Amino acid sequence: MNNEYKVSQQNKVRQLQKKATYDTESVHKILDSALMASVAFVHNGQPVVVPMLYGRDGTTIYLHGARKARIIRLLESTTTVCLNITHIDALVYARSAFNSSMNYRSVTVFGSPRLIEDHDEKLKALRIISECTMPGRWDEVRDSHDKEVKMTGVIALEIESASAKVSTGMPDDEDEDYDIPIWAGILPLESKFTTLQSDERLIDDVEPSAAIRSMQGKQL
Amino acid sequence: MNNEYKVSQQNKVRQLQKKATYDTESVHKILDSALMASVAFVHNGQPVVVPMLYGRDGTTIYLHGARKARIIRLLESTTTVCLNITHIDALVYARSAFNSSMNYRSVTVFGSPRLIEDHDEKLKALRIISECTMPGRWDEVRDSHDKEVKMTGVIALEIESASAKVSTGMPDDEDEDYDIPIWAGILPLESKFTTLQSDERLIDDVEPSAAIRSMQGKQL
Repeated sequence: MNNEYKVSQQNKVRQLQKKATYDTESVHKILDSALMASVAFVHNGQPVVVPMLYGRDGTTIYLHGARKARIIRLLESTTTVCLNITHIDALVYARSAFNSSMNYRSVTVFGSPRLIEDHDEKLKALRIISECTMPGRWDEVRDSHDKEVKMTGVIALEIESASAKVSTGMPDDEDEDYDIPIWAGILPLESKFTTLQSDERLIDDVEPSAAIRSMQGKQL
Repeated sequence: MNNEYKVSQQNKVRQLQKKATYDTESVHKILDSALMASVAFVHNGQPVVVPMLYGRDGTTIYLHGARKARIIRLLESTTTVCLNITHIDALVYARSAFNSSMNYRSVTVFGSPRLIEDHDEKLKALRIISECTMPGRWDEVRDSHDKEVKMTGVIALEIESASAKVSTGMPDDEDEDYDIPIWAGILPLESKFTTLQSDERLIDDVEPSAAIRSMQGKQL
């Protein structure tokens, strides 16, 4: 694996290039810190964007949905997918509207989707999606029924190009604006798991596992 | 204004239809509760999805970016945009991998973009975006320079069709799975503004306004 995704017309970041990076570590770190991706494709010449759960293994992203779902059938027959993940980390209050912005971590990926047909490969991909979303849970739940695997459509998306863009820190104001007597700074936005809530139909004395309990308080 | 967005092939929700709604109030409520939208369009036959700040006024969504940015030039020349906003509210730990899922609030919008050329209309739209993102801030900052307005590209996206999809509550397991002695329930994910951090270059004794202070602790 190279240390950088190749830069092409497809993934080249054109605005605020200083904030852009193509190294695989930065791209994968952001991919691994989110739960949902915005997956865009073209259908009958029109754009469609759908939020989807996903998992990553190396340079492959796995997506899933109901086998009969339009998104799965369309991804099966499409050649290029664009996927974006963005965390907003703060509102940036500058001294002008023009320089006001956000801090964020964002990744954009382009790739070709492939429908996974093989039962074992499907199970392996579903495990990856599950582990990326709910670590440790796959081995706790009952085995998947064959029927359930059949009803699930799984897409392997090979990353062909990717870019990350990260914005951090304080406002970047015009020199002459620093004298304006107005408050400036940032307001952080935190995405955090809170406290587990048990299902009302839980069997008495059943407790969440250590893996599940350790998710409480975790920040994205 | 009708109370529902018209259902067509474009915006019809096909999966989990029970969770879908087309009423304007539900759609607008979700639109108004987020900061960033995933905006998808077609460029040279390929899908592209870009995260963008936005604001809403009635059935118009305003987007902005650098006037010379590819996204603005492309939105100027494209006929259809698909925009999605999704909040994840919880991980749903069911008793099987198959029934495990997330709780979320999601909106998908289709519309035609129009580049705003008129200076005053642009300023009005920029104010709407600013007020949706940083309420009260527009009147605190210095006036925008004409040059800044010229350098900003603003797109008006008329909502032509839209749908909302909301998933809440506890896992929906198979009847026979409720006897499995495994913990099940939800792990809420909270997105919340925390505490203001002042710019190091702030003039002494300048305090954030009441509007800015009231954002602290606010949940999305």
